[in-house]
Amino acid sequence: MVITSSNNEKVKYWGRLKLKKYRDQENLFLIEDEHLLKEALKKNLVKEIITTNNELTYDLPIYYVNDKIMSLLSSQVTSAKIIGVCEKIKERAYQDRLIILDNIQDPGNLGTIMRSAVAFNFDTIVLSNDSVDMYNPKVIRSSEGMLFNINVIRTDIKSFLNNLDSSYLKITTDVKGGEDIRKINSDKLALVIGNEGSGVSKEVASLCDKLVYLKMTQECESLNAAVAASILMYEVYHG
Amino acid sequence: MVITSSNNEKVKYWGRLKLKKYRDQENLFLIEDEHLLKEALKKNLVKEIITTNNELTYDLPIYYVNDKIMSLLSSQVTSAKIIGVCEKIKERAYQDRLIILDNIQDPGNLGTIMRSAVAFNFDTIVLSNDSVDMYNPKVIRSSEGMLFNINVIRTDIKSFLNNLDSSYLKITTDVKGGEDIRKINSDKLALVIGNEGSGVSKEVASLCDKLVYLKMTQECESLNAAVAASILMYEVYHG
Repeated sequence: MVITSSNNEKVKYWGRLKLKKYRDQENLFLIEDEHLLKEALKKNLVKEIITTNNELTYDLPIYYVNDKIMSLLSSQVTSAKIIGVCEKIKERAYQDRLIILDNIQDPGNLGTIMRSAVAFNFDTIVLSNDSVDMYNPKVIRSSEGMLFNINVIRTDIKSFLNNLDSSYLKITTDVKGGEDIRKINSDKLALVIGNEGSGVSKEVASLCDKLVYLKMTQECESLNAAVAASILMYEVYHG
Repeated sequence: MVITSSNNEKVKYWGRLKLKKYRDQENLFLIEDEHLLKEALKKNLVKEIITTNNELTYDLPIYYVNDKIMSLLSSQVTSAKIIGVCEKIKERAYQDRLIILDNIQDPGNLGTIMRSAVAFNFDTIVLSNDSVDMYNPKVIRSSEGMLFNINVIRTDIKSFLNNLDSSYLKITTDVKGGEDIRKINSDKLALVIGNEGSGVSKEVASLCDKLVYLKMTQECESLNAAVAASILMYEVYHG
């Protein structure tokens, strides 16, 4: 049976998962496209599958919908052909390499930082409560599936920094100066990255041990937040 | 007089500049928001100003429009309050540090690469004909105004590489391996970055002298294109 009505209760339920509020309430999110769904399946996170391809079968509850319903559920201009309803990923204990994001708003930046964090062996992203939701479809897409390979903890980052063991060197960036990132050396490290427009908030910066900077020409005031985060993680990884 | 009709000839003319085809034909583009307009004014590129603020005056032809017209012209969800009609930036001769983009599609990536290129002293971006237009509003916005500080040449990059003086070391990335970027040393350098999905095309890669790679964990297949480009430019800049 193919679902064709936007008044169908299931369709309304899935549709609500496009909003953070309902994702939080239901502890679920939607994942679009086959290559990302595959990653979610590997992690046993998929509860239900929604597809326009009525020849598909999975060892999971599967719902067939028409193109109209799919375009309601998909976040893309050219709709996905398959969507998985997934359980949110469980937060794990953090280890030695943390990146802390203070009010990151751009979904592309968060997804890109996830990707770079996996590439450069950071184990955990600590996401401030006021940052963009990691289950935003654009975040998922720009993470290229790496959201399944990185631990993300969403929390009050001020309390987090206050309670973080002193064996962690807490660093953040400053455009005006600071220590060259290449001179930083610590087994345990927490790198704090600020908001795209306003940078790291003063209160958060005051909880850090050191300011670091990336040498650049004077013509450019600052780098894109995901680029700055990635270069710093790259430098920490390369030691 | 405030323009309120979408049938106004000026409005129709400006509206067409939202499309690359007409930007190319008229050699003009639109720039939104005061801080970006300011950069364009410094470069003497602004021909006309369109604004909803009828108290503004400029030493240029200025047109007052209502919110409805502004929302037609602006590319943003929350419309700009001021738009400049600008002449396109003239291409200049390139110097010693070039970044060549092979079919870059994401406007955010192009803007971000412009910003990093200025930060890390690359003088020219050579943009393949099939790449996203540098005057796309999202490119302009994510460049944070740096499009005015970087020379961009749009051309056939295969011919460009073929005709490039042999004093330039031509390098590109390969996920499977290559030389560590830190070992690369050349006064004149052309760094080639590939498409977001498919990487550098075989034909373009075959025109390069060397493959370089960035060491990363095996969990992550590749970095975001703007991040990879930025880390490589950063390494070249830091020598």
